[in-house]
Amino acid sequence: MESLESEGKAGEYYDVVKKFEYLDHTADVQIHSWGDTIEEAFEHAVMGMFNYMTEIDGVLPKKTMEVSAEGTDYESLLFHLMDEFLFLSCTDDYFMAREIKITEFNREKWTMKALGYGEDFDRERHGGKGTEVKAITYSAMQVYDKTPKSEIFVIIDI
Amino acid sequence: MESLESEGKAGEYYDVVKKFEYLDHTADVQIHSWGDTIEEAFEHAVMGMFNYMTEIDGVLPKKTMEVSAEGTDYESLLFHLMDEFLFLSCTDDYFMAREIKITEFNREKWTMKALGYGEDFDRERHGGKGTEVKAITYSAMQVYDKTPKSEIFVIIDI
Repeated sequence: MESLESEGKAGEYYDVVKKFEYLDHTADVQIHSWGDTIEEAFEHAVMGMFNYMTEIDGVLPKKTMEVSAEGTDYESLLFHLMDEFLFLSCTDDYFMAREIKITEFNREKWTMKALGYGEDFDRERHGGKGTEVKAITYSAMQVYDKTPKSEIFVIIDI
Repeated sequence: MESLESEGKAGEYYDVVKKFEYLDHTADVQIHSWGDTIEEAFEHAVMGMFNYMTEIDGVLPKKTMEVSAEGTDYESLLFHLMDEFLFLSCTDDYFMAREIKITEFNREKWTMKALGYGEDFDRERHGGKGTEVKAITYSAMQVYDKTPKSEIFVIIDI
């Protein structure tokens, strides 16, 4: 690797002929959340997802949305809860939550209800900072319901 | 999922308590390049890599850098050629190529020489548009040396 010459020709260049294109583009990020209870860890996993779309400190608590989720264990319940909120963010005027509150958690039926406090996406105040979340994944998902600290690891496609 | 209320409180909000963090972040993109010859497909695979870092139309041909690569087959040769240019982009004043020319290709020894026409990275003119390329990968790599069209598929970590 050696420099052969260094004569500049600024301003005299043409567009490059391009015989290439970009195909797939995949990306993901792992959210790690925690709490004193497993409910709190669930809440912050969802908030971590919203914070990836837009800085949640900038989201106002103008609107409250309720979500129900069902599963057969912690993992499927987490998946469906996050998926329900992800769905809200893609529809319903692009609802963004700043805080989440689990209001019901039935461990026998594996059902959950949660409230999301937030507002519809505002391009001026929320736009341009965040990243689209494409999907929740089960990949390497871990849910630890423990005392004194519960933890969650979940990977989302972005 | 139903809206429970909708009373706005703009300007009266506090920062959210956050019990989450983002861990891994992985991303990649597949470059597809082609040419009348396999050499041309190699050239455009490298150009596709540089174009991901910065728009190569905006790179001036001020400087020519020569790179040598060795391998044992098409795939390893492509890997090492791209890796050599990636190395130049991380060192040597962050050299960016707008065009690549393969000057030697020895199919018996699997060696290659190439010239890169470009300039050192200029934060003002090149900055802020591109993405860091972290590594070349062998993942799903495909090299087709065919007439009348040669093609390459290579995934790079970004």
